[in-house]
Amino acid sequence: MVEEKFKPAKRVAGQRQDVWSIINEAAAASPKQPIVNMGQGFFGYNPPQFILDAAKSALDRVECNQYSPTKGRPRLKKAIADAYSPYFGRELNPETEVTITTGANEGMLSAFMGFIEPGDEVIVFEPFFDQYLSNIEMPGGIIKYVPMSPPKDGAERTSSAANWSIDWDVLEKSFNEKTKMIVINTPHNPVGKVFSKEELQRIGDLCLKHDVLILSDEVYDRLYYVPFTRMATLSPELAKITITVGSAGKNFYATGWRVGYLIGPPELIKYVAAAHTRICFSSVSPLQEAAAIGFEQADKEGFWDSAVKEMQGKIDRFCQVFDELGVAYSIPEGGYFVLANFSKVKLPDDYPFPGHVANRPRDFKLAWFMIQELGVAAIPPTEFYTDANTHLAEDWMRFAVCKNDNILDDAKERLRGLKKYMVT
Amino acid sequence: MVEEKFKPAKRVAGQRQDVWSIINEAAAASPKQPIVNMGQGFFGYNPPQFILDAAKSALDRVECNQYSPTKGRPRLKKAIADAYSPYFGRELNPETEVTITTGANEGMLSAFMGFIEPGDEVIVFEPFFDQYLSNIEMPGGIIKYVPMSPPKDGAERTSSAANWSIDWDVLEKSFNEKTKMIVINTPHNPVGKVFSKEELQRIGDLCLKHDVLILSDEVYDRLYYVPFTRMATLSPELAKITITVGSAGKNFYATGWRVGYLIGPPELIKYVAAAHTRICFSSVSPLQEAAAIGFEQADKEGFWDSAVKEMQGKIDRFCQVFDELGVAYSIPEGGYFVLANFSKVKLPDDYPFPGHVANRPRDFKLAWFMIQELGVAAIPPTEFYTDANTHLAEDWMRFAVCKNDNILDDAKERLRGLKKYMVT
Repeated sequence: MVEEKFKPAKRVAGQRQDVWSIINEAAAASPKQPIVNMGQGFFGYNPPQFILDAAKSALDRVECNQYSPTKGRPRLKKAIADAYSPYFGRELNPETEVTITTGANEGMLSAFMGFIEPGDEVIVFEPFFDQYLSNIEMPGGIIKYVPMSPPKDGAERTSSAANWSIDWDVLEKSFNEKTKMIVINTPHNPVGKVFSKEELQRIGDLCLKHDVLILSDEVYDRLYYVPFTRMATLSPELAKITITVGSAGKNFYATGWRVGYLIGPPELIKYVAAAHTRICFSSVSPLQEAAAIGFEQADKEGFWDSAVKEMQGKIDRFCQVFDELGVAYSIPEGGYFVLANFSKVKLPDDYPFPGHVANRPRDFKLAWFMIQELGVAAIPPTEFYTDANTHLAEDWMRFAVCKNDNILDDAKERLRGLKKYMVT
Repeated sequence: MVEEKFKPAKRVAGQRQDVWSIINEAAAASPKQPIVNMGQGFFGYNPPQFILDAAKSALDRVECNQYSPTKGRPRLKKAIADAYSPYFGRELNPETEVTITTGANEGMLSAFMGFIEPGDEVIVFEPFFDQYLSNIEMPGGIIKYVPMSPPKDGAERTSSAANWSIDWDVLEKSFNEKTKMIVINTPHNPVGKVFSKEELQRIGDLCLKHDVLILSDEVYDRLYYVPFTRMATLSPELAKITITVGSAGKNFYATGWRVGYLIGPPELIKYVAAAHTRICFSSVSPLQEAAAIGFEQADKEGFWDSAVKEMQGKIDRFCQVFDELGVAYSIPEGGYFVLANFSKVKLPDDYPFPGHVANRPRDFKLAWFMIQELGVAAIPPTEFYTDANTHLAEDWMRFAVCKNDNILDDAKERLRGLKKYMVT
């Protein structure tokens, strides 16, 4: 048998069906076409015109269609250094403290490839962005999980995403001499939490004490609705051990552009840039140029402010249906995901779930059910927990609100169909 | 010391300065500004207008700016399947036999990540594309090198790149029970050789005998000046063990677009696509759409034929200066690189080479000298050999001719300055 003859590497073999393919399969099988897709976090609308114009004009320039330097186009590195220097409270050096990657995803992989040796441990909070896991395991890292829990009254009462809490006891015990890195994510996907200055300081102090690198995934860094603190800005000591991850795709409504960036001290950036070169060689040139122009002009265009206002409006607009239904939710402090608690929805006992959904936690059944019966797709967040901790999130569902208002309204109308399944 | 505290992973630490940074450094230090860059293989001109128009119109479509499916946009997979089915002599299935990657480079990394476990061996010919090495080593592969040698009379006589020859004895002895994969590259960079059907069959038979996968890097597959055979088309048995690597960037004069693809049997593509998902998640969307339109329209636009004619013309135009100088070269059978033999150039005994150039083979000194004295950058090919075999290539230099004709003419005029250093 050929498949036996060429055995795949363990890193790609025999994984459980992932949430994205289950959701797509459910959507294809649903009678409620077209499905309203509130699942994956892509934007339902285009980047602003000044960014699109920048991309188009870049396409007319020969050098913008050819290889960029492996660490990124000088103009983009400078634009990022200029845009972030005020936040970092010092002049960032575009040549040594900024490097461009093929999306934030490959940026994080580059950070792990740059520093993780087989057996090194990396601390990751649950719920996690699923790509973290394979990215850590690729260079041979071992993941130590630290759960975040929803507020105790999360099923009954809507409250701020701030109320999701870290298990500090587990976190402190996770550090040992093998710990090389910790991943934090703020604003957080899927929770919507913006880590407070106190929380970040407490995590940072542990990392300083144990000589652990911090990879701070801040790809939603332009969308926050409460004060936002960046780990690297807390102190010069923390700046020295922190690599900050950013995403032009998330910033400019273009998740398909694959332009990410890493900011950090030269002695760290040097090695993550070297890893990036070995992974992708260089990143997409014309869209790097467009992103550069985006960063240069965003303030002048009032883009960052309008982005926040617009997304805040979408959150409010959408969540109104949960208020109406009596479904409790976490009010996002940042980003564009809303977690809502569906413990009050009673699934019919005899509902015909396919086997690979029936044996997953309740949120997978909720997701399947909502796609079939209402035609609304959302993401079951236990996908982002280890099996031991799925009980923490099995009543919740993640909705991406970065969609056009008419889509949000359509989703709301469909969600009203839940009324008859609500137990009070 | 911070750098000691956070030791980088071995895979990125302490490598010798690479050829690209040496050449850039030399160019910056040269008095002959601006340098004529015949070094790196990027195009000196834009993609054809119908491709640029396609990219611009993709930027206006919401779905073309957001995440593509991880395995690539359906339209691009179909366009590639349609474009290659005639060559493969059968209908390729776009859903199972084609997958899109972030440039051919990340495509090759995906193939290694999909199949190589630590300790597995991979056979690579010298000279090699330098990224192969780090891409094989990242998943823990061990590289076995098989040298290709220039024609014995390569210093005296210009002849076809076909005359570069494989050391069959070393090749046969390289196979053992740990051998998992072989990498071939045709048309070959930097040699310009198109492997003959007989050579491919002989390599393929060894792979079939030893159950070894073939990764066939065919990124220059639209630029050949002699009959071109694709490994996967030799027999159904070879098709079953071959993954073919292609590049929309190379095909459409857009090396900065980072759109590559892999073609192969479903049971292989499945795992390389899984690896790609873990590395980059998905690839750049609007330029995938543009590439799709490129493949759909290229024949109709007469693009493939004109691309061959144009590049053949550039090779002829440029090489004329070598004929004039009495510098022997290899006539490319494919691709856009020319290897020329500079054994007759005498470098001044007391020339002030910097230390890190002085201790490299003669071709590095030639490269440095030509940048300083003539203002022409070319690539020393011993960078693509192991230390044991640099003697095979230390008199040769690689020139990329994918540049505008006025640049080629400028380079020729500058190269005439070599006359006074020629020994006859």
